[in-house]
Amino acid sequence: MNERHEPLGPMSGPQVLPCPLDALDTPCLLLDEARMDHNIARLRTRLRAAGVGLRPHLKTAKSWEVSRRLMASVHGPATVSTLREAEELADRGVTDITYAVGIAPHKLPRVQALRRRGVDLTVLLDSVEQARAVAAASDPANPVPALIELDCDGHRSGVKPGDSALLTAIARALAPSARLRGVLVHAGESYEARGEEALAAAAEGERAAAVTAAAILREAGFPCPVVSVGSTPTAFSARSYAGVTEVRAGVFVFFDLVQAGIGICTTDEIAVSVLATVIGHQHDKGWAIIDAGWTALSCDRGTAGQAVDQGYGLVCDVHGRPLGDLVVTGVNQEHGIVAPRPGSAEGLPGLPVGTRLRILPSHACAMVTQHDRYHVIGGGGDMVTAVWPRLMGW
Amino acid sequence: MNERHEPLGPMSGPQVLPCPLDALDTPCLLLDEARMDHNIARLRTRLRAAGVGLRPHLKTAKSWEVSRRLMASVHGPATVSTLREAEELADRGVTDITYAVGIAPHKLPRVQALRRRGVDLTVLLDSVEQARAVAAASDPANPVPALIELDCDGHRSGVKPGDSALLTAIARALAPSARLRGVLVHAGESYEARGEEALAAAAEGERAAAVTAAAILREAGFPCPVVSVGSTPTAFSARSYAGVTEVRAGVFVFFDLVQAGIGICTTDEIAVSVLATVIGHQHDKGWAIIDAGWTALSCDRGTAGQAVDQGYGLVCDVHGRPLGDLVVTGVNQEHGIVAPRPGSAEGLPGLPVGTRLRILPSHACAMVTQHDRYHVIGGGGDMVTAVWPRLMGW
Repeated sequence: MNERHEPLGPMSGPQVLPCPLDALDTPCLLLDEARMDHNIARLRTRLRAAGVGLRPHLKTAKSWEVSRRLMASVHGPATVSTLREAEELADRGVTDITYAVGIAPHKLPRVQALRRRGVDLTVLLDSVEQARAVAAASDPANPVPALIELDCDGHRSGVKPGDSALLTAIARALAPSARLRGVLVHAGESYEARGEEALAAAAEGERAAAVTAAAILREAGFPCPVVSVGSTPTAFSARSYAGVTEVRAGVFVFFDLVQAGIGICTTDEIAVSVLATVIGHQHDKGWAIIDAGWTALSCDRGTAGQAVDQGYGLVCDVHGRPLGDLVVTGVNQEHGIVAPRPGSAEGLPGLPVGTRLRILPSHACAMVTQHDRYHVIGGGGDMVTAVWPRLMGW
Repeated sequence: MNERHEPLGPMSGPQVLPCPLDALDTPCLLLDEARMDHNIARLRTRLRAAGVGLRPHLKTAKSWEVSRRLMASVHGPATVSTLREAEELADRGVTDITYAVGIAPHKLPRVQALRRRGVDLTVLLDSVEQARAVAAASDPANPVPALIELDCDGHRSGVKPGDSALLTAIARALAPSARLRGVLVHAGESYEARGEEALAAAAEGERAAAVTAAAILREAGFPCPVVSVGSTPTAFSARSYAGVTEVRAGVFVFFDLVQAGIGICTTDEIAVSVLATVIGHQHDKGWAIIDAGWTALSCDRGTAGQAVDQGYGLVCDVHGRPLGDLVVTGVNQEHGIVAPRPGSAEGLPGLPVGTRLRILPSHACAMVTQHDRYHVIGGGGDMVTAVWPRLMGW
């Protein structure tokens, strides 16, 4: 996955690698390579023990360097959220890709172009209208494979797993020019689950939905080789993968405060952060002002409904160690307000103008989307050892 | 202001201009040129009548094509929120630029480099620490001019306008190697003002803060040629500019639902939108699903506290006409949920898969930041007549 715009444009450092963090201008995005490698190994070990395959969702990182570490091989398998990602992966030789957002009919020529390049690209759908469009666009010599999206918890798209009439109508509409490949489900509501039992129940609901729908389709005579489930919370909580052929997960590669709030990771497993600089204070209010606003942090407030509200991000020192209860309590375009979490008994520590801080993400996917490159901290120290571009756009 | 990465990367249309909206892939960012021109003329006419100058804030659009329409001349004046913007404007010949975010001392070499290129770049500060750093970095032959940031309403950074001890201490710390240029204030809390009187009061508070601080500095013997005020709500609400030398405003160029909710514009003055495609439905819930999530719309929820909550954006047909009470009620990375506003008596209209919609922004600055180019609808019709790159990064 290459960056859309080659070569990378000017940067205000680092010009020479490796370099210390001080050589970077702020705000900028940091990636702790050792934590990322740990996170990847953690899920891979778990799924290997469970005997189920991983089809990593590459939409979190959108970086070739991260993608190649996530995939079992340079050919895949992979999950993407945009055709742009699929096209960039194809340029790198990846051939096994699931495009896991419901297909818009006008995008089928791009799908076909990828398939003609030798990419086994699978699309997703949850309606007869889409199935007819996919069938109409399919080349009989190279039929487009499709997964039926299932809705296990009411959070977004998908067919109800027990809706045999709709499931079989979609499968019929695909045949014979296109090809039913299976079913796919994402337990989006697992982000709201609290506690081990609730998480295990969400995972079981996701599994049961997929297996139920697959059984209905097979009973109706449609082969259903792929039974795909996944979300980061359920990937770490499932007690059974009976009937499941693959697990998808994305944000686990970086983790974030939302996942920490659910209990899926600890804050010291969070692999990305934004490096920022203190540019002022309102001493009477106990505020420090930093040069990272929503352009750098995103305005995601995913922990607002959790037991601990982490604001727009948890504030750490330049080495990544959390500074007590300090969070980013407000953001404007290029300003962040740093203060103790509301209700905290702590005060603002001494943070002179020029102090560098790292801000851990509320939602990693949202934070990294604001940046076009990762400054990679390798080797367990505080040195920037590489700069990896990030893909943008659709 | 050029894009950081030249040339623009591949796009899925338009390849030939002008082209109809149908030739664009979705999601993508649209800019209605006639509305933008109207918005620029509206503020310019108002300020001309009031006899005060405009120093437009270019951070909303971050586009050279928009910037040159906003500025009085190709040399400026201009306001920016990042040094990257200043550097790109300098490449285009702009020479009069205010960098309106408190200066981080480590950024002073970039400031100096711009000044050596002939750009009259002014920095902002609100502490003695910063003033000392600016003085230390100043070349006596080319002193860095600085504005003291004031806090008129407690929303963010700045010196209290009546704090003569701090104001004069900062001015003293700047002299003699640097140069006090004046004072600057932004009534950020005007976004919370409701009603004409409250807005006029916010504007007067902003003006009074600037004039008060300037008088204190002048009385202490410091020249204070610049008295700069501004925010979009106050720029349209001030009844006096006595003592003010310039007005800054940014989002007015595009306007958005937050400004419409304050009463500063109407929805048909909003000049930017995201073009999206319906990819599915949950008929039992009255939802349509679109292919625009927070990567395209941002997760800004600026209207959440207003009388009318517009969710993540107001839904219009492909020509830009609002569809009753339809808003985007939820977003994931690449999905948006379209439904009638909670409490509405309306149902979901027929929106078959493939229907194209335009989503008006909650906060225009946040929406456009998610995109690297504008698809410009020119000539009052529905044809895309140009593609303008957007600057990203810092």
